[in-house]
Amino acid sequence: MRVYADNNATTKVDEAVVEAMKPYFSEMYGNPNSLHKFGSETHKGVATAIDQIYSGIGATDDDDVVFTSCATESNNWVIKSVWLDQIKNGEKNHIITSEVEHPATLSACKYLEREFDVKVTYLPVNSEGTIEAHTLKDFVTEKTALVSIMLANNETGIIFPIKEMVEIAHQKGALFHTDGVQAIGKIPVDVQDLGVDFFSMSAHKFHGPKGIGALYIKSGVSLSPLFHGGSQMGGLRSGTLNVPYMVGMGKAMELAVKSFPKMNVEVRRLRDKIEKALLELPDTFVVGKENRTPNTILISIRGVEGEGMLWDLDKKFGIAAATGSACASEDLEANPVLEAIGADEDLAHTAIRISLSRYTTEEEADYLISSFKDAVIRLRGISSSYATVQAQNEAYSHK
Amino acid sequence: MRVYADNNATTKVDEAVVEAMKPYFSEMYGNPNSLHKFGSETHKGVATAIDQIYSGIGATDDDDVVFTSCATESNNWVIKSVWLDQIKNGEKNHIITSEVEHPATLSACKYLEREFDVKVTYLPVNSEGTIEAHTLKDFVTEKTALVSIMLANNETGIIFPIKEMVEIAHQKGALFHTDGVQAIGKIPVDVQDLGVDFFSMSAHKFHGPKGIGALYIKSGVSLSPLFHGGSQMGGLRSGTLNVPYMVGMGKAMELAVKSFPKMNVEVRRLRDKIEKALLELPDTFVVGKENRTPNTILISIRGVEGEGMLWDLDKKFGIAAATGSACASEDLEANPVLEAIGADEDLAHTAIRISLSRYTTEEEADYLISSFKDAVIRLRGISSSYATVQAQNEAYSHK
Repeated sequence: MRVYADNNATTKVDEAVVEAMKPYFSEMYGNPNSLHKFGSETHKGVATAIDQIYSGIGATDDDDVVFTSCATESNNWVIKSVWLDQIKNGEKNHIITSEVEHPATLSACKYLEREFDVKVTYLPVNSEGTIEAHTLKDFVTEKTALVSIMLANNETGIIFPIKEMVEIAHQKGALFHTDGVQAIGKIPVDVQDLGVDFFSMSAHKFHGPKGIGALYIKSGVSLSPLFHGGSQMGGLRSGTLNVPYMVGMGKAMELAVKSFPKMNVEVRRLRDKIEKALLELPDTFVVGKENRTPNTILISIRGVEGEGMLWDLDKKFGIAAATGSACASEDLEANPVLEAIGADEDLAHTAIRISLSRYTTEEEADYLISSFKDAVIRLRGISSSYATVQAQNEAYSHK
Repeated sequence: MRVYADNNATTKVDEAVVEAMKPYFSEMYGNPNSLHKFGSETHKGVATAIDQIYSGIGATDDDDVVFTSCATESNNWVIKSVWLDQIKNGEKNHIITSEVEHPATLSACKYLEREFDVKVTYLPVNSEGTIEAHTLKDFVTEKTALVSIMLANNETGIIFPIKEMVEIAHQKGALFHTDGVQAIGKIPVDVQDLGVDFFSMSAHKFHGPKGIGALYIKSGVSLSPLFHGGSQMGGLRSGTLNVPYMVGMGKAMELAVKSFPKMNVEVRRLRDKIEKALLELPDTFVVGKENRTPNTILISIRGVEGEGMLWDLDKKFGIAAATGSACASEDLEANPVLEAIGADEDLAHTAIRISLSRYTTEEEADYLISSFKDAVIRLRGISSSYATVQAQNEAYSHK
């Protein structure tokens, strides 16, 4: 049996999405910008895709939704172009983000610090793994150009109070960007209700293809382009339109919204079942029990190195999980969210992320539980550090 | 009958490319950066794709080939990052390009002029539609950071003397970028022989998918990233790898190289046949008869508006052609290459580009010839400007 429990890293493309894309490779292959039927026959697919995205996130007709190649592009675009528009060519000098953002946001901010002396504030998360909205009040000023804080964290699934933070940022005249990559299909998303100026998406996190994302831009908010060129997408993002993937992303969005009740009930039940079972193991901890996306568990297992655990799950049981973001997985470092929360270093190296999808079955959940428990018992049996922990515990209990 | 003769705008995805991509959507869908088998089982496809690109352009193992989302990204990346590395953080202040580059190059250069006061020289083409290498000598100095000149022009197919220009640029210590988008599969490409530092590619110009490109970076040449994030592609281009399209681009490159003999003999023969037949019409002109890609014709038909001609070919005959770059086709402007060549304004509005592919058949070529002639005769019949031209010609011949 093989179980894919790493859906926060990427997802299987839905068969219906593959079907929707297919005609746009070798049948309707014209360039949508061309002035002939081979070009214009792609327009219906493109228009449907755009409608599906608008409708999926609750955008109005006056807003812009621009397709990009990934959320890394969307995040880089917002951060670097707000720098250009509001800092280089404006009166502002400050950006606020959080310590637990995706590397795309953190690295873009660090680039601006390094190259252009932009002042960046990195808000920490509290011991619950969240950022309380009022924290923002202490940092946002009239000089703040942008606040960029994610909607749902990729590692813990914790949902941040974006709506409240948007109000605080707007009171000081700062723009607000949220990286919504982990939210689509997992929680209801309504950009109007959130009030954000920018919202980043990535199709491959909700059963669409890798290599396409989008950026929502609120009506009335301007943003310089990141790519200059043939003025596609109203000049906001040049480059020949990736028609098949646009169609695929639209379809994936439609399916994600349609599947939300299943995600919220069935997937949540499986997640809770797995979590409850794993927490029966002694010395295990889950980050952020409340207010999380319904598919995610970040669990720490004292005495078990995360990488060793991944290896066992993968090689012995055919189960795919993660120690953290796939975008940082080549470095065997402590989990940055656990570090931000303030976990001790030993514990930060023992985090395992399990992330389910609408394809996860009861059978897979049961197999995951039994395999996971087996692996923990085996690895703790050979772990000198866990032997020390146990000895200490025993000593305490005999006091 | 329908004939697609706009292959310089975009191409049909080869069925073998679609087949190659298919397993990477819903079967091998893991994130290549993930530390489990769902991730690692994609590595073989990715490695094959990389090999196919290296081999297709003659790169060495020490060079870098980085996948991007399109050539617009590749061109923007080179120009903006050379600015960062060599101008902002260096001693240089100057970029050289040509007046007939793709909008991605021209607009990126104009952005640097506008925002950062970079000095940009736009080399003109001569009356033959080309740039002679020695022209560059008069403009490149020790302060020149980058020369960016395309290998083959998208509108005329004319091949520029890049190898000679690279030598001139390198003598003055300038880096050299060539936009090779229109070259792949149409002329032999060997980046080592050309000597360029950067080479941009786009899969959808050679029967791969839209939405993926690449940038070749010569060994020993450094380039800051355009996207910051999860450090994929050795930190050069962050963002989850678009595995299906990488596999597709690799396959498309392999097929393009394999099909080159056909392109060079069969497609060239069809192109020459069409061109010869159309030039039998009076008052028609072709730009750049020598040293062109074998699939392209840019023909001017005095007295016939390019857009009217396109409309007739499309609506009456089902033939797709272009007036110029699809990336500029929404503006009904004079053809910029013809303008650069110095054609009079009337003529610059009459340009039609016909671009064939390895799928173009003899039957399609014959149908194109007869339809094109019909359309020209009909449109000239209702053209007041052409009546004037004829009357003038007649007056001269009776002198």
